[in-house]
Amino acid sequence: MDTKNIALLTDFYELTMANGYFESGVANDIAYFDLFFRRVPDNGGFAIMAGLEQVIDYLENLSFSEDDIAFLRAKDGFSEAFLEYLRNFRFSCDIWAVPEGTPVFPGEPILTVRGPLMQAQFIETMLLLLINHQSLIATKANRIVRAADGRGVMEFGTRRAHGIAAAELGARAAYIGGCMGTACTVCEKDYGIKALGTMAHSWVQVFPGEYEAFRKYAELYPENCTLLVDTYNVLKSGIPNAIRVFRELDPPSKAIRIDSGDITYLTKRARKMLDEAGFADCKIVVSNSLDEWLIRDVLLQGACIDSFGVGERLITAKSEPVFGGVYKLAAIEEDGAIAPKMKISENVEKITNPGFKCVYRLFDKTTGRVMADVITLDHEAAPAGDDYVIFDPAFTWKRKKLSNFTAVNLRKKIFDKGVCVYDRPSIDEIQAYCAGQIATLWDELLRFENPQNYYVDLSDELWRLRIELIENYNVD
Amino acid sequence: MDTKNIALLTDFYELTMANGYFESGVANDIAYFDLFFRRVPDNGGFAIMAGLEQVIDYLENLSFSEDDIAFLRAKDGFSEAFLEYLRNFRFSCDIWAVPEGTPVFPGEPILTVRGPLMQAQFIETMLLLLINHQSLIATKANRIVRAADGRGVMEFGTRRAHGIAAAELGARAAYIGGCMGTACTVCEKDYGIKALGTMAHSWVQVFPGEYEAFRKYAELYPENCTLLVDTYNVLKSGIPNAIRVFRELDPPSKAIRIDSGDITYLTKRARKMLDEAGFADCKIVVSNSLDEWLIRDVLLQGACIDSFGVGERLITAKSEPVFGGVYKLAAIEEDGAIAPKMKISENVEKITNPGFKCVYRLFDKTTGRVMADVITLDHEAAPAGDDYVIFDPAFTWKRKKLSNFTAVNLRKKIFDKGVCVYDRPSIDEIQAYCAGQIATLWDELLRFENPQNYYVDLSDELWRLRIELIENYNVD
Repeated sequence: MDTKNIALLTDFYELTMANGYFESGVANDIAYFDLFFRRVPDNGGFAIMAGLEQVIDYLENLSFSEDDIAFLRAKDGFSEAFLEYLRNFRFSCDIWAVPEGTPVFPGEPILTVRGPLMQAQFIETMLLLLINHQSLIATKANRIVRAADGRGVMEFGTRRAHGIAAAELGARAAYIGGCMGTACTVCEKDYGIKALGTMAHSWVQVFPGEYEAFRKYAELYPENCTLLVDTYNVLKSGIPNAIRVFRELDPPSKAIRIDSGDITYLTKRARKMLDEAGFADCKIVVSNSLDEWLIRDVLLQGACIDSFGVGERLITAKSEPVFGGVYKLAAIEEDGAIAPKMKISENVEKITNPGFKCVYRLFDKTTGRVMADVITLDHEAAPAGDDYVIFDPAFTWKRKKLSNFTAVNLRKKIFDKGVCVYDRPSIDEIQAYCAGQIATLWDELLRFENPQNYYVDLSDELWRLRIELIENYNVD
Repeated sequence: MDTKNIALLTDFYELTMANGYFESGVANDIAYFDLFFRRVPDNGGFAIMAGLEQVIDYLENLSFSEDDIAFLRAKDGFSEAFLEYLRNFRFSCDIWAVPEGTPVFPGEPILTVRGPLMQAQFIETMLLLLINHQSLIATKANRIVRAADGRGVMEFGTRRAHGIAAAELGARAAYIGGCMGTACTVCEKDYGIKALGTMAHSWVQVFPGEYEAFRKYAELYPENCTLLVDTYNVLKSGIPNAIRVFRELDPPSKAIRIDSGDITYLTKRARKMLDEAGFADCKIVVSNSLDEWLIRDVLLQGACIDSFGVGERLITAKSEPVFGGVYKLAAIEEDGAIAPKMKISENVEKITNPGFKCVYRLFDKTTGRVMADVITLDHEAAPAGDDYVIFDPAFTWKRKKLSNFTAVNLRKKIFDKGVCVYDRPSIDEIQAYCAGQIATLWDELLRFENPQNYYVDLSDELWRLRIELIENYNVD
């Protein structure tokens, strides 16, 4: 997908604010913005970070065309000096972010931007859009993959995606979350994610009969011979015709797909018919509005399934299609010192964490499993020692002493003064990293319902700063 | 948005089938495919057709690059003759479709493609993707606009959209459904839909105090002076500071926006404070995870609101983010005659309507309101007369005699042998047409819960054909 020339794909307020900062003489004050989310979709135990590669593409190509400038001039309200600044725009911020595929938790800054206020503000909309979308789909895909319990899951949702970027980048995010491939062809071309597919019902209808349709397909594609058996009647027509064709042509790769009806009943009967015909090697693929709940359900009922095609409920994250990442000002440098900023809000959960921060994940030295995440101020030393105390940011009487841990800085430097300094991993590396990191989580975080709350706590110093700012805030 | 060079944004099975049709010698048989949906999202009474303009753009630009060809060659399984065909691909089908903005109902073919089997099949994925996405958002937006009961609704969801196309085309669809504008700047540049926006909380935080932030904004943008009053405390700080700035600078356009807290309580108090200060002309805008239910609720409670900003729940159609359009083979020409085709399926509601069809909407000659939609075979005369009989396709004992109606052919010819013959309306014309058509619906169809089922019935001839095909179907 082309991510160039989308400078104006942004909320209009980013432009009114940018011009306003420019006109107020604060445009180049150094600001810190944090990107974080407040809850995990589907009340899950964790989310999976995704979308960073597209953020990098966006920022490396961000510029304003003469067309863009002319459009803004006609909109009125923008000064010529500001438009001239846009004409010469060069992204020059620093960015730290959690790598794609990392399990992440509410409240932690998964990405921080430091740079000229006007720039750091302007990129808000696209950063949120790109990370919200792919993190949503990667998180949902991982739930579905976990429900499939080792069986393959193919992403099949292109036709129900919310536009072309949702189709392709949704398939990319689904792969990060653990899917084995996609139906979306261009995703293989652009991202190296295997694209697969065989036939629609129309293929079966075009030929004089189902047998002729299957036979022709097996002749053409013996290495990829998945026959769709539910156009007319699965048990009376589809499977007998598939067996006949397998007997006649013995394609090396045999599978049937069932896309309607009672999955458990039909796959059990199909398995028996195929086995009795001597085709124990024939795989059974199912599709039809599946999600993690239905997959777990049919497997508990003993359905005989080798892999799943999952479409609309994955590509739209149907059960909860919103990933609520936000982007908030955390600090501004004043005379070289970092002045922390914070939003108070009537909704307590919307109060932000002030200052330039760091995120550490503490792993148990003995088990290798996660213990907690800790947010510190950037200048603090990494958590260490045998009596490290952390504070729950909302329930501040909850303190916890930690020991026997290794602290890992969860974020990498991505941009340094506008230059990408991050060595981008391949999509297969991201997928493997994701699976590896999920293996470090507590079992209690993997539940679909009522997972435990993971600790995302504050350092003593950050906790004190937060309290101080809340107490010192005076209504004008 | 660039819709060129996306030939491979398609399910891989479209390509295996296309190559298979080519190799089987049926690629240029003339086929008919219908696009329709089976239920309205949110159990609503009707959906709104959208996305046709992007379908036209897609088909007018559909071609395969050398890159695409090389990619497919490397994938294996495609014949050189087929790849050569793709290299010289020229779209040559006929298309009929319901214009954008039309209220549409389950089961009716809102779009029909007639042309070479290989082509008509291949375009399935993108047609579904484009129409499913925008029809979903237009339908949801219209529910929200109806809930707002005459107050303006702005689309504010860019940051929560599923990718960049979802942001821009979602805003376009929302406008068709009745929104007054969008936050997405590029949507004004590309589609002429007014983009609006003022400030984020960060604007307020950057200045020494809320008053200074408001004052600076009012100085810069007196014509668009909407002040965000909930960064610290709406009633104790935000509104008093807004009033102070309005008094000092008297901007011609005054508004406040509240983005958190108890909307009903805060807007009632805000209205009183503003009125008492002499600013009855100051508008009150609210946002914060709104949808049709919350909007109706706060209005019933007497909230004082002039307009709404609606984000994530609109741009993702959160309550039901899937529009289930499907694309099914309906007929193939054999020796110049149309041979109807039909999918039987284990799920009764998945049985399709065979043949090349027409859709008529019958309007009551006296009231101008809709009476029913009727699907006929294409060669039939338009419904007419005073005793016209229609049949419910599922409950076939339900027949109905109609009289005193005008029958309107609901679909226009869009492509003729690959050439667009449709005079594309402007986005404002589409929006106005949509509002006008909704005004012809029964009040009982406009309910959010338990709307009446609209009649989408079959002509006598189509009904007989369907019965005949079901009865004649023999398992191989």
